[in-house]
Amino acid sequence: MKSFEIPQFGIENLALVERDTPRPGPFEVLVKITAASLNYRDYMVVKGVYNPKMKRPMVPLSDGAGVVEEVGAGVTRVKKGDRVAAAFMQTWVDGPPTQEKGKSALGGSIDGVLREYSLFHEQGLVHTPDSLTDVEAAALPCAGVTAWHALFEQTAVKPGESVLIQGTGGVSSFALLFARAAGLRTILTSSSDDKIGRAREFGADETINYKQTPDWEKEARKLTDGMGVDYVIDVGGSDTVPRALAAVKTGGVVSLIGVLSGVHPSVSPGQILMNSIRVQGIYVGSRSMFERMNRAISFHNIKPVVDKVFPWTEFAEALRYMEGQSHFGKICLKF
Amino acid sequence: MKSFEIPQFGIENLALVERDTPRPGPFEVLVKITAASLNYRDYMVVKGVYNPKMKRPMVPLSDGAGVVEEVGAGVTRVKKGDRVAAAFMQTWVDGPPTQEKGKSALGGSIDGVLREYSLFHEQGLVHTPDSLTDVEAAALPCAGVTAWHALFEQTAVKPGESVLIQGTGGVSSFALLFARAAGLRTILTSSSDDKIGRAREFGADETINYKQTPDWEKEARKLTDGMGVDYVIDVGGSDTVPRALAAVKTGGVVSLIGVLSGVHPSVSPGQILMNSIRVQGIYVGSRSMFERMNRAISFHNIKPVVDKVFPWTEFAEALRYMEGQSHFGKICLKF
Amino acid sequence: MKSFEIPQFGIENLALVERDTPRPGPFEVLVKITAASLNYRDYMVVKGVYNPKMKRPMVPLSDGAGVVEEVGAGVTRVKKGDRVAAAFMQTWVDGPPTQEKGKSALGGSIDGVLREYSLFHEQGLVHTPDSLTDVEAAALPCAGVTAWHALFEQTAVKPGESVLIQGTGGVSSFALLFARAAGLRTILTSSSDDKIGRAREFGADETINYKQTPDWEKEARKLTDGMGVDYVIDVGGSDTVPRALAAVKTGGVVSLIGVLSGVHPSVSPGQILMNSIRVQGIYVGSRSMFERMNRAISFHNIKPVVDKVFPWTEFAEALRYMEGQSHFGKICLKF
Amino acid sequence: MKSFEIPQFGIENLALVERDTPRPGPFEVLVKITAASLNYRDYMVVKGVYNPKMKRPMVPLSDGAGVVEEVGAGVTRVKKGDRVAAAFMQTWVDGPPTQEKGKSALGGSIDGVLREYSLFHEQGLVHTPDSLTDVEAAALPCAGVTAWHALFEQTAVKPGESVLIQGTGGVSSFALLFARAAGLRTILTSSSDDKIGRAREFGADETINYKQTPDWEKEARKLTDGMGVDYVIDVGGSDTVPRALAAVKTGGVVSLIGVLSGVHPSVSPGQILMNSIRVQGIYVGSRSMFERMNRAISFHNIKPVVDKVFPWTEFAEALRYMEGQSHFGKICLKF
Repeated sequence: MKSFEIPQFGIENLALVERDTPRPGPFEVLVKITAASLNYRDYMVVKGVYNPKMKRPMVPLSDGAGVVEEVGAGVTRVKKGDRVAAAFMQTWVDGPPTQEKGKSALGGSIDGVLREYSLFHEQGLVHTPDSLTDVEAAALPCAGVTAWHALFEQTAVKPGESVLIQGTGGVSSFALLFARAAGLRTILTSSSDDKIGRAREFGADETINYKQTPDWEKEARKLTDGMGVDYVIDVGGSDTVPRALAAVKTGGVVSLIGVLSGVHPSVSPGQILMNSIRVQGIYVGSRSMFERMNRAISFHNIKPVVDKVFPWTEFAEALRYMEGQSHFGKICLKF
Repeated sequence: MKSFEIPQFGIENLALVERDTPRPGPFEVLVKITAASLNYRDYMVVKGVYNPKMKRPMVPLSDGAGVVEEVGAGVTRVKKGDRVAAAFMQTWVDGPPTQEKGKSALGGSIDGVLREYSLFHEQGLVHTPDSLTDVEAAALPCAGVTAWHALFEQTAVKPGESVLIQGTGGVSSFALLFARAAGLRTILTSSSDDKIGRAREFGADETINYKQTPDWEKEARKLTDGMGVDYVIDVGGSDTVPRALAAVKTGGVVSLIGVLSGVHPSVSPGQILMNSIRVQGIYVGSRSMFERMNRAISFHNIKPVVDKVFPWTEFAEALRYMEGQSHFGKICLKF
Repeated sequence: MKSFEIPQFGIENLALVERDTPRPGPFEVLVKITAASLNYRDYMVVKGVYNPKMKRPMVPLSDGAGVVEEVGAGVTRVKKGDRVAAAFMQTWVDGPPTQEKGKSALGGSIDGVLREYSLFHEQGLVHTPDSLTDVEAAALPCAGVTAWHALFEQTAVKPGESVLIQGTGGVSSFALLFARAAGLRTILTSSSDDKIGRAREFGADETINYKQTPDWEKEARKLTDGMGVDYVIDVGGSDTVPRALAAVKTGGVVSLIGVLSGVHPSVSPGQILMNSIRVQGIYVGSRSMFERMNRAISFHNIKPVVDKVFPWTEFAEALRYMEGQSHFGKICLKF
Repeated sequence: MKSFEIPQFGIENLALVERDTPRPGPFEVLVKITAASLNYRDYMVVKGVYNPKMKRPMVPLSDGAGVVEEVGAGVTRVKKGDRVAAAFMQTWVDGPPTQEKGKSALGGSIDGVLREYSLFHEQGLVHTPDSLTDVEAAALPCAGVTAWHALFEQTAVKPGESVLIQGTGGVSSFALLFARAAGLRTILTSSSDDKIGRAREFGADETINYKQTPDWEKEARKLTDGMGVDYVIDVGGSDTVPRALAAVKTGGVVSLIGVLSGVHPSVSPGQILMNSIRVQGIYVGSRSMFERMNRAISFHNIKPVVDKVFPWTEFAEALRYMEGQSHFGKICLKF
């Protein structure tokens, strides 16, 4: 079978190699991968900035979907022919995160899914909703679960509450769709009027062009009668968190889910303390969260926002497309 | 009656003035103040660094206790002769914090308690536990309620979990006593072996001298088998929060309750994100929290740690004593 | 001014009397009542079965809305001319319920709103959303807040979860509207195909005619692939709770909010224990819940389902209409 | 190896048979059982009243501890020689309960531990705290975890809150020890002054002899200034739940964990509704709860209350001893 590998960091060093197709041991499942998707983390992984000490060669990509090819002894959760997707952290089934569960992240801690066949423990798989194609299912594991986790698993959102969502990338596009399904008021920031127009079509209630309005946190306060928003989904990291803290209400929640602008120290403890804010780090989520999300996706017939689909062998091109930051939603690969 | 006032910022400018004794209107209560206590916030208030735009003259100090002298029409919660203490935020009775409730903080937003008589709305008072003197009761409103709020109102602590407490000041000494009452494992940091010795007497399970062990976050990890502590009560602010984030477990909670080392930007969003940490700003708490705390204080016969008691007219000396940072527990004033 | 009173129990004994119009004292607000609504509790109150020892004469009805006529000294929350509604429990502002807060329920513990002018403490009022008429606002205080409390304040509902709602009365019609706004899957039971048809129009996803399908709990399980529903809003009481417990999933929640079929002992502890069920008593809710509900009502432009509006002087007729149980949604009174 | 089996219901029909010692497959662990303990559930299982349709022969008992004899391929959580205990529900690792997890209960759904060797999936085991003997560890899986779950996993208890504990059996004795470790005020009911004397030694703050004071719920209210207790741990079932509901405060929690007096319908929905009570069914708990409990047991050096230890072959005698209800704490078996 064919497999992508990162022998050395750098997009230019990506290798498409031939490997033996593995066979499932007890409780293991062999999945024929039919689709995958990219996250900004994958870009950082390939560039070597995510974890410079990462083992190499590493099979890239955390997010994949496909069809069960063969099951090992004792497997009961899936059967041959089932359509499935892989959980980002293979051993985080339920309950809170732990250090150990974090060590089972695909395409970063352990080999990822960018290969024709991949082995998983049966506990690391979820069924693909009937309403989704494999490409759409491949959009879910990291970005979808992260958005779901931030919105619904750490807080008890109520209809009519407001959430500020930064940008229109993978997590943000999911956050927009999920927040709407839950009856939240959505305030979306973007650098582009084109993207803002599309976000409106996807149901954004309020939008702020942060190129035109760099002090978007003040605009967010205005839109909420000076009270501040209830929740912020922060994808920007160091450059955006201080503004997020200024945009959120006293006692509000800022979920940190991305670091597009870097991780340099930028946050003042005083701002958090004086306004009784909760800052919550969100690192994807558990398989159970994935399943709860899938239930909502099925019931509401939510379609992941797929920006562009590349043939899987054009992984390098897809990474460069991501680099350009012109996308709205997810960049996917098809096998 | 006599009253302290801050006509201009600076300890040297504090004025002891003569004012008319007020009379209670409907639902108001006149309290003869018999004791008060100092918090680091009061020091910042007097110095003018807490809020340079604060109205002046301001009656200083948030924390006072005393005896009901007279009640206005309609008052049912207290009666003449009752021993009472004032809630830090006079209008935060219950539920979550809000911007508006924050504007009712004594000795900062509205006039404080450093005067012979003070008026309160009946909703802004709690009864003093029989087991405490007035001086001990005066130690509670800010430091006690803050420690209680951080430990018990934002998280569901369980016996055997670990909490790291920084230092031996007002909040920290309460956190130590309350954590012990709840069966938590306490890890205390201090710069002084003398204070560490006292902390051990008050029941600290583990102690770290951060002068001798500047990387106290690593020691905290060692003490928890590499997992990290479950909770950190951070009083240091900018200099300590990055270490607190390194000391806490994946999925753990860092409560920000003080900023002794300042509020300059020092926190990286990446550290919070990757370890799924919750950073929770704690700005004192509600009257209901105060009442729940008092119940625990009564049941466990907990005595606030009072370092030194000054005559109330020696307020300036008390502030300078606080400046010296040699205290363990609370600095109080007696009328 | 004119006022209804219950001098003795019985619809036939209701008296329309002349009383002095009161004047607001400090922190009090005089409201000109323009609309009211009936709840089943009011019916029980008038009949004398709600609380046989209730003080008499009692001004009936908990739910009223109107316009501020005059404010007393110190009032800041409302001003003359504001459109307002009264909180069911006048002193339950925020936080958890208490025995004492329960003693401030309008039209049961203290005099209600069925009179031309009524006095309230300013803390006992909420502003009426601009999107509602006074009659619609009068539908909210008991039924609306109860449904909101059950759905959003005791549990953290997530889109795609399922809730079974019994019937089409006041609380149930609100529960249907709110559950839809939050993206829940709604399963509604009713004895009438006509009402089921209307419920479908209001967005019920699944419906069960419990006359035709008396074992509706089994049907509910079928509709949820044998797992059981996530939540049940039980309005029936003794006759329905055992079925509700059989309809809910392992670890699910049954909210008890009504007792239309009585309160005789009917529930087995074994059923609750073995399926790890939570049974939650819901007795209306706080003013803060009312305000959060109003925010959702405004944002989603939710219109309370008003079945019929009577002139307020036809209160007896309205009660008899309620007795007939042919209504769908709320029965209201207009002044 | 020797194994007990239930070929037909009835203590008199228990059989001690010879079976092949199994060998561990992948991810399985063979444990040499060295101790076990009895729960009232085991008594009901043997008598045939727990589940008349239970598969037979069934190996009895859910609670066992021992030493790892051999590990199968891929096992990483334990190694040969480790002291371990088995989780009551073998597949409930973390997160909320589900129907499916409930089907993995030892000694009821699947074969139990009353045999010389027993196989477990590695996920179904926890390490025995160093501070406990195997007999003490065998006391934990059902009774200990149930008490822990009820007290700490469904509610956020705070020091100084009150909990009423019924009786002095297995779960109740654990609840007493754990509640004390968490700083709760404990009120214990018992039918015997002897047992009350022992409960006092174990730290019960208040005690009620319910033979002398059948209306113990009124006494509980008196002891709490008429407010009612914060929590009740109900082990009695049908006869005690109505009194438990009368003993608990408005907004309080009654945890149903046992049904010693049966499961006939006895509970009125009205009582739950009007006082905003939460009734929570507790059916043991997850492996993660077990581990959190063990941490508390280690830290506080808590010793399970072991009433009497029988040789394991005297299982029938031990059951008859349980029938006599004279025990205080756990009845154990030693291999």
